[in-house]
Amino acid sequence: MLSKNTVKFIKSLHQKKFRKQESAFFVEGAKNVTELLLSNYAVSHLLFTEKYREENASLLIGFPGTKIEVKPKELSSLGTFSTNDQALAVAKIKENKPLTLEKDQLILALDDVRDPGNLGTIIRIADWYGIKKILLSKNTADVYNPKVLNASMGSFTRLSFEYVDLVEKITTSNLPVYGAFLEGMDVHQLEKAATGVLLMGNESNGISGQLEKIVTQKLTIPAYGEAESLNVAIATAVLCDNLKRTMQ
Amino acid sequence: MLSKNTVKFIKSLHQKKFRKQESAFFVEGAKNVTELLLSNYAVSHLLFTEKYREENASLLIGFPGTKIEVKPKELSSLGTFSTNDQALAVAKIKENKPLTLEKDQLILALDDVRDPGNLGTIIRIADWYGIKKILLSKNTADVYNPKVLNASMGSFTRLSFEYVDLVEKITTSNLPVYGAFLEGMDVHQLEKAATGVLLMGNESNGISGQLEKIVTQKLTIPAYGEAESLNVAIATAVLCDNLKRTMQ
Repeated sequence: MLSKNTVKFIKSLHQKKFRKQESAFFVEGAKNVTELLLSNYAVSHLLFTEKYREENASLLIGFPGTKIEVKPKELSSLGTFSTNDQALAVAKIKENKPLTLEKDQLILALDDVRDPGNLGTIIRIADWYGIKKILLSKNTADVYNPKVLNASMGSFTRLSFEYVDLVEKITTSNLPVYGAFLEGMDVHQLEKAATGVLLMGNESNGISGQLEKIVTQKLTIPAYGEAESLNVAIATAVLCDNLKRTMQ
Repeated sequence: MLSKNTVKFIKSLHQKKFRKQESAFFVEGAKNVTELLLSNYAVSHLLFTEKYREENASLLIGFPGTKIEVKPKELSSLGTFSTNDQALAVAKIKENKPLTLEKDQLILALDDVRDPGNLGTIIRIADWYGIKKILLSKNTADVYNPKVLNASMGSFTRLSFEYVDLVEKITTSNLPVYGAFLEGMDVHQLEKAATGVLLMGNESNGISGQLEKIVTQKLTIPAYGEAESLNVAIATAVLCDNLKRTMQ
């Protein structure tokens, strides 16, 4: 049975302050919960409906934490979805450890990306393009915000994150740094797949002046029409597609 | 002064039923309103704050419709933005006329794209890539939904739309039809810029069976990681970028 304390605990995790205090977060919906259970996150609570239990019996049997069967209505009242007839799980936030930046990989760095939907979508894109590590400036949205996790569609479980001073971290790495600017090199002219750091900036202001200085290759997505700009998640996808492709 | 009737009229336009009945829609925020005033839409009402008036004096002088100066608080209460200290405008919906499909252009066709945010983002992407015409299945979101218009960032003013039976319209055109599928040709292998119809499907179900039959070239965005899929707006952007580029 769902206790008042558990309800209070899960509801508190909507707020960053309590996520930090409890070092915990929740995900909701069948896909996100299943991906979380299959990941290396330490899951403490699993709330599920009859429907989820019937479709995921094997996952439930091996689960060592607190298991509670609930009604869809109870589930929906706990999370952010208007309806959730499947599952919700609580897991431990991973420590903010320094990431090692390898020379032969593409790494994403986000400077002040504020919108949780954008951050979640970018995580899903990164996972599509085989990016394993994302560096985030300290004022970027919180990865464990429910809106970020929902938009990531489970992809957050396969990536590592570090909130860090981007200038210091990237400078120390000595890697090539790509950034999107209006006056950069046409990204269609890149001749081979690229590795290094792809830096994306704030929704309104782009890449900050301090970070612009450490960009080694400015890139531009060629425009064929009249829109002034692209959304940051859209631009991330187009740049990743161009940086990962190998011309033949 | 803002009359009760005007308030009631604008508020009714949040709903599709009344937009259809009145053949009118509204946009909000400085960028959207300014783009609308500079377009060939017939704008009937312009509500603006002191701030908007001071920054856009020349636009206001020539405006022939109903002009009302209001307080930011009044503006915000009318639209969908949590705050709007600039402007809101009402315009006439354009007639749903048959679009001519030229052979040398890239045209977008959307099959059952339901989310207004996705549709608005796709319109902005289309405008970036120089696409001028979008065909929409009848169950696709309404272009004049405020959420669509907001996400389009003014780009909707530069495109033409037709709600139509896609199978019939596209078949009659005899144009090449590109569609995204998991088992299509790697889009990075396209050898030159392509024209024709780019067909994008529903958020959950993709392109419907009936439309799949008229696709002449299935395309796949190569995945380098483990995400199962990309959001429809993201996939549209990556495909447009690949279809528009000319390999050199």
